[in-house]
Amino acid sequence: MSEIKINLSEKEMPRQWYNLNADMPGCLPPIGPDGKVISPDQLAAVFPMNLIEQEVSRERWIDIPEEILEILARWRPVPLRRAKYLEEYLKTPARIYYKDESVSPGGSHKPNTAVAQAWYNKKFGIKKLTTETGAGQWGTALAFACSLLGLECKVFMVRVSFDQKPMRKLMMHVWGAKCVASPSHETHFGKEVLKRMPDTPGSLGIAISEAIEEAVGDKSGQTRYSLGSVLNHVLLHQTIIGLEAKKQLKIAGEKKPDIVIGCAGGGSNFAGIAFPFVHDKINGEKIEIIPVESSSCPKMTRGIFAYDFGDMAGMTPLLAMYTLGHQFVPPPIHAGGLRYHGMAPMVSHGIEEGLLTPRSVDQVQCYESAMIWAKTEGFICAPETSHAIAVTIEEAKKAKEEGKEKVILFNYSGHGLMDLAGYEKYLTGKLERYSLPDGELKKSIKAIEGFPKAHTKKAHK
Amino acid sequence: MSEIKINLSEKEMPRQWYNLNADMPGCLPPIGPDGKVISPDQLAAVFPMNLIEQEVSRERWIDIPEEILEILARWRPVPLRRAKYLEEYLKTPARIYYKDESVSPGGSHKPNTAVAQAWYNKKFGIKKLTTETGAGQWGTALAFACSLLGLECKVFMVRVSFDQKPMRKLMMHVWGAKCVASPSHETHFGKEVLKRMPDTPGSLGIAISEAIEEAVGDKSGQTRYSLGSVLNHVLLHQTIIGLEAKKQLKIAGEKKPDIVIGCAGGGSNFAGIAFPFVHDKINGEKIEIIPVESSSCPKMTRGIFAYDFGDMAGMTPLLAMYTLGHQFVPPPIHAGGLRYHGMAPMVSHGIEEGLLTPRSVDQVQCYESAMIWAKTEGFICAPETSHAIAVTIEEAKKAKEEGKEKVILFNYSGHGLMDLAGYEKYLTGKLERYSLPDGELKKSIKAIEGFPKAHTKKAHK
Repeated sequence: MSEIKINLSEKEMPRQWYNLNADMPGCLPPIGPDGKVISPDQLAAVFPMNLIEQEVSRERWIDIPEEILEILARWRPVPLRRAKYLEEYLKTPARIYYKDESVSPGGSHKPNTAVAQAWYNKKFGIKKLTTETGAGQWGTALAFACSLLGLECKVFMVRVSFDQKPMRKLMMHVWGAKCVASPSHETHFGKEVLKRMPDTPGSLGIAISEAIEEAVGDKSGQTRYSLGSVLNHVLLHQTIIGLEAKKQLKIAGEKKPDIVIGCAGGGSNFAGIAFPFVHDKINGEKIEIIPVESSSCPKMTRGIFAYDFGDMAGMTPLLAMYTLGHQFVPPPIHAGGLRYHGMAPMVSHGIEEGLLTPRSVDQVQCYESAMIWAKTEGFICAPETSHAIAVTIEEAKKAKEEGKEKVILFNYSGHGLMDLAGYEKYLTGKLERYSLPDGELKKSIKAIEGFPKAHTKKAHK
Repeated sequence: MSEIKINLSEKEMPRQWYNLNADMPGCLPPIGPDGKVISPDQLAAVFPMNLIEQEVSRERWIDIPEEILEILARWRPVPLRRAKYLEEYLKTPARIYYKDESVSPGGSHKPNTAVAQAWYNKKFGIKKLTTETGAGQWGTALAFACSLLGLECKVFMVRVSFDQKPMRKLMMHVWGAKCVASPSHETHFGKEVLKRMPDTPGSLGIAISEAIEEAVGDKSGQTRYSLGSVLNHVLLHQTIIGLEAKKQLKIAGEKKPDIVIGCAGGGSNFAGIAFPFVHDKINGEKIEIIPVESSSCPKMTRGIFAYDFGDMAGMTPLLAMYTLGHQFVPPPIHAGGLRYHGMAPMVSHGIEEGLLTPRSVDQVQCYESAMIWAKTEGFICAPETSHAIAVTIEEAKKAKEEGKEKVILFNYSGHGLMDLAGYEKYLTGKLERYSLPDGELKKSIKAIEGFPKAHTKKAHK
């Protein structure tokens, strides 16, 4: 029996995060509607200054505070596993490894940054965090982190999910967070939306606006807003995934991966596993690095690289990113975490530099892959994660055709125990295949035509 | 930072199960209504002969087939963790360790025996397994095991749970099992019940009868029935938990636990962690071993030791066990896995021998304990598991009062992500406290007054 789980001891946990920003001199900063670069001070009402410093830092290695490591040690380091049974099923010469982020208290990678953000906010004297959540992964992660650190937490949850996924809301309650359906009557913006559209199912854009309004509206100055993906500091906190994986691949006797794969909604779990290997690629290693998106929300493969708002209401700074336009409303696919119109600036920049080669997959192919996974490896994956598995299977089949012993590494970003409805639809033949009509795509992108163009200095191409 | 996770490599997995039956010469065998001991042949229509042999075996160590180990290696060995944050919260000198069985594909300890049972059935030429499930933990575990081994699986799920817990049913579907609400129209017994009581919410007793009927009714002889607790061979398969824990405690530098704790419904997760330490106790070690039941279903602390049926319909052999009478209907507490009228014969015999000291806990105290757990250790436990945590907290407080550095080990039998309704009731002050009236208890026990008495030979008292 060969070892299929590679564990690390707590002593072997990475002591520093890797900051890709140090190796990406051309990455474009956020700007205001006037086209001027946003200064750190302009963000101070929304985020604490210590996180803003991380956001703009060009240091390559940033120390992880010991107290954060203490909290992460509740579930980290997480195992690197060999997907031996999938390999056997596919009869592939590829060796497939995955980082199992599903073992965290929230069941996904999200707590890695939730803990760090809550800790830095607390250190800065903040007493309360606000955030938005769609399907609920991020809201539960922040509720968990705030519970452990003794911070108040308020989550604006998109109404349609609030009603359809009561379990996620109950998890937040267990960890002491307040969770309200968005739009709510608790903010001016929420009230205004409800007046105009009393029956709206809500959206992430609306929820973000409510959360920011509540944070900046606290006259005591003790409330801040927290975001679960997209921003540099969020991606930074997730690099612990790839840094652990590197150590574990060595233990497994692998010099390096040939292919690294992660699903990408806002980009944080993908960045977490991939960035430490992007560093190696910049330094000459040959590695194919693939962020995988849903074909129904194809910003990386069919969108444009431009300055755009992070939210639908246009309240955030403009970010240089691959985008479908901030007015884009993706179809209701089951991978809620992939229904975001833009891609993290740092990931977008990596695509521009030719370091990353994005791919898109249809949800039917994803559920087919998830079913193969459940019947070989035995675990039920999250709908988002199934996108990474789908491309892993594609690549393992290719390795078979080519007769090559490739090493594939992917991020198992979360389990699917709270999201089984999509499986049932697939099993009963009711799962829809979505392909985005060209006309709709063009219309959505046209809406940001007048926005400042994003031109990076291509350093690595 | 001290290590709080103690991992084992796959190479260190136990190669043999421990059979307490070898050290319990007085344990009483099942009998028929005529008072005669049931012969192995009489069980052959229900179970395959290789499992019946295990059921009656007196061998102390039974080899675990390599192929079963291969399947278990998908998640085993599971970590032993130090509950350091709970210790700090309680300011106890006790060192608290727990086996984390929640990391299995089904989220509980149940797959340990599901895999073994499916494997032995397959080896015997069986093509299909039937079973019953209440809340759904056992049904999902058997569905998982059958999926991996290529067996057909049919689960009769108590109707009230079938309707209220659709997620568990969907998990079974993902693993390819057929799950029907019980009573169903698919068996004679089910039809008969539906005719008499068309609106019945169902019961485990009815579901067991349906599952057995379907198994023995298959004329091809290729279907058998599978049970998730109570029987000797089921408890045997779970001893891998305690055997792993022993190795891990050594690595943690502990000579032995002073106290071992597990919640007990039918008895299998408790037996899993406890029996290897019962062996040590028989051989002179001083260890307090505590099975914990719900105060609303108090067979061990308020029931009698007698021969009784395993199911409500009276279709099983008579088992010598602590029981409240097979007609007992427990109140609808949230720990569905603890709502069983009897206790495994082997555990019952251990109580008779004075080796085990059972305790009962009210569900309000259990949820209080679960909330402390979620806010210190960070994980959300199953309602059943909260009973073990409640007594762990009791014992840790006692150690503090006595100023003693005790080593406490308990079994974290499963996570609570599929069972959050109880938490919500607790948090909104709607959770009921149940105490069983004496009159009701007496009435239920009176119903088995004429049954054969159970008198063990007390070897170890």
